[in-house]
Amino acid sequence: MFVIGSGGRHFEKELRELGGEVLEVELRKFPDGEKYVRVLGSGKEATVVSSTFAPQDEKIVELLLIGDALRESGFQRLRAVVPYFAYSRQDRVTKEGEPISVRAIMKALGLYYDELYVFDLHNPETLRYFPGKGINVSPAGVLAKYFAEKLGDGIVLAPDRGALNRARAVAEKLGLEYSHFEKRRISPTEVEMRPVDIDVRGKNVLIVDDIISTGGTMIRASEILKKLGAGKIFVGVTHGVFAEGAIKRVSEAVDELAVTNTIPTPVSRISIVPEILRL
Amino acid sequence: MFVIGSGGRHFEKELRELGGEVLEVELRKFPDGEKYVRVLGSGKEATVVSSTFAPQDEKIVELLLIGDALRESGFQRLRAVVPYFAYSRQDRVTKEGEPISVRAIMKALGLYYDELYVFDLHNPETLRYFPGKGINVSPAGVLAKYFAEKLGDGIVLAPDRGALNRARAVAEKLGLEYSHFEKRRISPTEVEMRPVDIDVRGKNVLIVDDIISTGGTMIRASEILKKLGAGKIFVGVTHGVFAEGAIKRVSEAVDELAVTNTIPTPVSRISIVPEILRL
Repeated sequence: MFVIGSGGRHFEKELRELGGEVLEVELRKFPDGEKYVRVLGSGKEATVVSSTFAPQDEKIVELLLIGDALRESGFQRLRAVVPYFAYSRQDRVTKEGEPISVRAIMKALGLYYDELYVFDLHNPETLRYFPGKGINVSPAGVLAKYFAEKLGDGIVLAPDRGALNRARAVAEKLGLEYSHFEKRRISPTEVEMRPVDIDVRGKNVLIVDDIISTGGTMIRASEILKKLGAGKIFVGVTHGVFAEGAIKRVSEAVDELAVTNTIPTPVSRISIVPEILRL
Repeated sequence: MFVIGSGGRHFEKELRELGGEVLEVELRKFPDGEKYVRVLGSGKEATVVSSTFAPQDEKIVELLLIGDALRESGFQRLRAVVPYFAYSRQDRVTKEGEPISVRAIMKALGLYYDELYVFDLHNPETLRYFPGKGINVSPAGVLAKYFAEKLGDGIVLAPDRGALNRARAVAEKLGLEYSHFEKRRISPTEVEMRPVDIDVRGKNVLIVDDIISTGGTMIRASEILKKLGAGKIFVGVTHGVFAEGAIKRVSEAVDELAVTNTIPTPVSRISIVPEILRL
């Protein structure tokens, strides 16, 4: 039984079409800005689906209110599916006095939910802050499927070493080679960026990452690949947290930009709904 | 040691002037809308002050992030002072399937705070949902002090029976009589509203309540009091959650409208900062 929060409305049609049973829910705001929640139905187990894109804090508090309503209505086992998990990049203290914000949100959701499913979490280790069972779902399958034909016998690249596991996961699904970009300071003011130990000449390239924001790195990577004689260049990212104008800039710099629909955007062409139904 | 959240900035100047020691804190938003928090200082005990007026959910999440930052920095005992507590009116299930929203927020704050201080909570019994020590502070003292001279030998009224305790608390501080309004259906379409067992003729009247929103009840009460020959009419309320245009409408209907500064408004003439310092 699915319950769709404000951050999950864009999944609803497909979820129903693919056979998901959806509990009716009333979600609105009082004139003073407080959220009102009401779930219409009963049962023992429910899966609440809501991505926490902006306005993030409203969606987080709503998840708590929905959890409270379901518990109050007698539901005994609650799962939260939060495909895009807000605050996931504030995953460590980089300056003294900072919080580990993702921990605070995980702990709060733990008050109501027994299980938490996230997609391609920025730092999968932070799932340990969730008190219940936490699972990080890889979007490699849907990304690989979407790009398989376009990419042909191309290669998969991560924009940096930290994202190499993501590139590997997609490449392995497609039986292709993979590698990552490396940044090297070549003068006090210049940093060179180049793909490591892989020949891109004449090859189509898919660059994958978890989050795209300004898209600056992707544009730069694309320029370098063109100079190196690569074929078509595709960008496939899980979460499209686009800054103003970023979709246009990246789309113009590469042959195709596509992200999944963890966040609804004009280029969210890759649906994770089949993955949600498989959980 | 005080830490001031986004919902407490309007207390800061007076808090410092009255001798409160305030820890510096950095509060801002990332371009994508996520809140960034950093506390600059160390210690063992801290009192975080933030009212959760609109945008409520941002202030609630910020309280969690500040709590996480303070714990991470080694603070061992944390108190939250939340003068206006959002969601306090969603304190019971009136339609099946609703949450007890105030419970969800209290439980979340309980993840980080040992003590919670609220002012004139809509339903003081809901403090039991806070896992630590929860205290409801009465604003009767500051309200009584503000209106003492204006009111003279007047009376104190609650707009309904539910608010009678509030009227009593203020009246007792001033040594004055008190009562409440009662609504009675006099025909299928008409409801009569009148003060119970008290003579208002020639008396100045102070109407007190916890929250004022549209102000409709206060305007109606004022009209009735005028018909009954009351003297000056004052409205003194704790939390000014004003709907659009309400300040003007109520101010025109009575001799003076004044609320406390749990929420900063143009008529927040009654400061609770001395009460915060006394906690």
